[in-house]
Amino acid sequence: MKLFLCTFIILCHSLSFAQKAPNIIIIFADDLGYGDLSCYGHPTIHTPNLDKLASEGQKWTQFYSASHICSPSRAALLTGLYPVRTGTDSHVFFEWSAQGLPPSTTTLAEALKANGYKTACVGKWHLGHLDGYLPTDHGFDEYFGVPYSNDMRVDPKMKVSENVLFREGMTLKKMRTRGNKVDNWVPLFENKSIIEYPCDQKTLTSRYTEASISFINQHKDSPFFLFLSHNMPHIPLFASQAFEGKSKRGLYGDTIEEMDYSVGAILAALKDNGIDNNTLVIFTSDNGPDLTYNQNGGSAGLLKGSKFYATEGGQRVPAIFWWPNQIEPGVISELGSTLDIFETCLGMAEIKNPNSTALDSFDLSPTLTEQSESPRENFFYFSSSTPPRGTIYAVRQGSWKAHFYTSGIPHYEPSAVTQNDPVLLYNLDQDPGENYNLSDQYPEITERLQKLSHEFEASIHLGPNQFLKKISEQVRPEWAQ
Amino acid sequence: MKLFLCTFIILCHSLSFAQKAPNIIIIFADDLGYGDLSCYGHPTIHTPNLDKLASEGQKWTQFYSASHICSPSRAALLTGLYPVRTGTDSHVFFEWSAQGLPPSTTTLAEALKANGYKTACVGKWHLGHLDGYLPTDHGFDEYFGVPYSNDMRVDPKMKVSENVLFREGMTLKKMRTRGNKVDNWVPLFENKSIIEYPCDQKTLTSRYTEASISFINQHKDSPFFLFLSHNMPHIPLFASQAFEGKSKRGLYGDTIEEMDYSVGAILAALKDNGIDNNTLVIFTSDNGPDLTYNQNGGSAGLLKGSKFYATEGGQRVPAIFWWPNQIEPGVISELGSTLDIFETCLGMAEIKNPNSTALDSFDLSPTLTEQSESPRENFFYFSSSTPPRGTIYAVRQGSWKAHFYTSGIPHYEPSAVTQNDPVLLYNLDQDPGENYNLSDQYPEITERLQKLSHEFEASIHLGPNQFLKKISEQVRPEWAQ
Repeated sequence: MKLFLCTFIILCHSLSFAQKAPNIIIIFADDLGYGDLSCYGHPTIHTPNLDKLASEGQKWTQFYSASHICSPSRAALLTGLYPVRTGTDSHVFFEWSAQGLPPSTTTLAEALKANGYKTACVGKWHLGHLDGYLPTDHGFDEYFGVPYSNDMRVDPKMKVSENVLFREGMTLKKMRTRGNKVDNWVPLFENKSIIEYPCDQKTLTSRYTEASISFINQHKDSPFFLFLSHNMPHIPLFASQAFEGKSKRGLYGDTIEEMDYSVGAILAALKDNGIDNNTLVIFTSDNGPDLTYNQNGGSAGLLKGSKFYATEGGQRVPAIFWWPNQIEPGVISELGSTLDIFETCLGMAEIKNPNSTALDSFDLSPTLTEQSESPRENFFYFSSSTPPRGTIYAVRQGSWKAHFYTSGIPHYEPSAVTQNDPVLLYNLDQDPGENYNLSDQYPEITERLQKLSHEFEASIHLGPNQFLKKISEQVRPEWAQ
Repeated sequence: MKLFLCTFIILCHSLSFAQKAPNIIIIFADDLGYGDLSCYGHPTIHTPNLDKLASEGQKWTQFYSASHICSPSRAALLTGLYPVRTGTDSHVFFEWSAQGLPPSTTTLAEALKANGYKTACVGKWHLGHLDGYLPTDHGFDEYFGVPYSNDMRVDPKMKVSENVLFREGMTLKKMRTRGNKVDNWVPLFENKSIIEYPCDQKTLTSRYTEASISFINQHKDSPFFLFLSHNMPHIPLFASQAFEGKSKRGLYGDTIEEMDYSVGAILAALKDNGIDNNTLVIFTSDNGPDLTYNQNGGSAGLLKGSKFYATEGGQRVPAIFWWPNQIEPGVISELGSTLDIFETCLGMAEIKNPNSTALDSFDLSPTLTEQSESPRENFFYFSSSTPPRGTIYAVRQGSWKAHFYTSGIPHYEPSAVTQNDPVLLYNLDQDPGENYNLSDQYPEITERLQKLSHEFEASIHLGPNQFLKKISEQVRPEWAQ
């Protein structure tokens, strides 16, 4: 009888877990490289909380951001679509951009909200900053953060709350200076209003953490979706007083160690609320490290290249999945992508979404729960500038990657883009550093990958380009015409 | 009363641990690069047992082999002395070498044996293979293994057991072919006799593991010291049938995954014998990966260079320390070296060794047990060839590394050795990849490091060169005259 009761209680307990939709937290870093966490091999950046997350969950080692630059990467994460489909592929949104992620798209926030989730976006958005494009226009109940990169600045013509004071005579000028000396006129939003300007960037990470924990505490009884999108370690680098000077790696490391601390604080909040066993946490990055800033940029570890490039260092990113008792812990070298987060979250939450338009997203749940093979077999590295929109720079199928083009920094180095003849072919499982071109030895594989890419290119309907409309021609600096 | 009893039992238990000298196991890999383990960031080499060892113990990220080539590195590990002091600095022992580690040196095995330890060397030795230089001549009770690199071959004039048959008409010829095609005429020794020739290299890792476990089982009640020195992943690469084709990384990965399996089997043996809580396990590598073998060589991760070079990739190696309840788990970015293993083992075993000649060895125990600062402040990167013996190529002090010379592959690329003028200066904590020379900005640091090196060079008494005597001039191939 006692045994029966016990079994019954355990069963009810399991059922209550199974019945309640899991909370979902996505923590997104900005320009964090593949090699920048201790569990991915960095020698002097200490990330004990992320290391713990990785060892208790799954550390993915062949996981791709859908783009090597910021806005397209974020559009893909939230829609499960290659950015070419939503017209967000060819640039990033600058402060003079009048568009953003098209309102017609279905975001993960909208899909979850439709299934009873409370939703919040905290941090960097970068998918449009005018009314109609902000997080609260895209399925998030609330928003707190900087709407674009932290080296961009408010445009005087933006719709802002009335109590914001602009610096007198402020005009836009070229802000993409190299180094760490960028004027810090960055607006902090709450929903659709600027609440601080210029915001104190030193406090960004800690305030994002507080806002996240506050949201968790408030919604601990309902399923929630939190998209915590840090502005760091994108330049200019800022850490709070408690972290400045803490890392042996310098200020760059300080910002990551503060982000790591934030991860620890959020996990503690989950435990304090007794919801850690019912929360899926995903940590990843939007693209590779920005090496144009020298020591203010990160490391792609053993991978070649960095942000802006279709080499592995540009798009392969750290990715950690954590959900106690649901995810089978281990190191996973299967293929995955930020594109897959859309369907995976729905899959883990057992939501059938009839409105899903996620053509490019695979549900990784079986790999997460049983370490079975990933359903993703291919990954396409799209151009973000020249050659014409929708061109595939490179493709990976299984172990093999074919490079059709060698890329340069989009828009800055158009001449650096060259068509590879012959195509370069690498076995990434054996040669992650892309050092040994094997195209001579395997012409049939090169041919197969070319065919695959051409077919995929031909199948894609290009969404209307979202980077054409500007707030005003006058505010667009000459270098960006 | 119950509480008192409990306390008493716990106290006795602790005392019994404290009183019994710990067993010590050093697992040494051959040519394993800094980036070749999963816990050091490799994407497709799966090392779950080493990852667990690292997360339960300490993973050191700034730990240096005392040399960028094999024999000097091993001499330093076993003596705690920079190889220049023992005359083992300027080359590796080839099959025609008639010398080895001088019998006058005190090895860690001798120091431990003098304190009641049972000692065994299993695997690669590479410190002399004639009578008088073998492991059993240097403090090891027993030896089982290949006495040098697994691309070297037995010399017909070596003293071997009488039942060994040599291939008819065998003569030595150049065996350092590039690639994986090396004749496999390698002898396997038991103590001082060859017991198999040519030995089946595919079974080496598994037989080393069996021999290690057999030694552990046999001596579970006495303190023991096991030096398990794998021949892998040095070329030519061999894995047993169970591991061949297992790793996504190819044969190179297979050999490391088998070594990882071996680590798991050894830990299981410790647990089975109930001695895991009284055993210090150290895992490290003799030098960086050998990139001259392309995909048959490993990865130094984010570090520059490889085996043969005084850049970080040549000498910084993975290093894991494990001893449950004694070592404070964490990632340690303090300085350490294989030189320190000598004093650290004695320190952890609380042995005061009046005969210690380990001038260059620091006891890392405080860092291991309390994560306090490492006592090692400097590390000297010595030349292993040109310029003259005893020349320091580079020095690290705290964060800073000054490169006085840029190195080439010793003896093969003498012309590649160039004196750097000005000296190159890197902040390794901030720039582990040695990408940003800061000598212009910090001339006073460069000067300080130069002075430090000159003083150390001047203070060192060079041991007689151990690479001069050959078994016979006839057996020495032309290329090595």
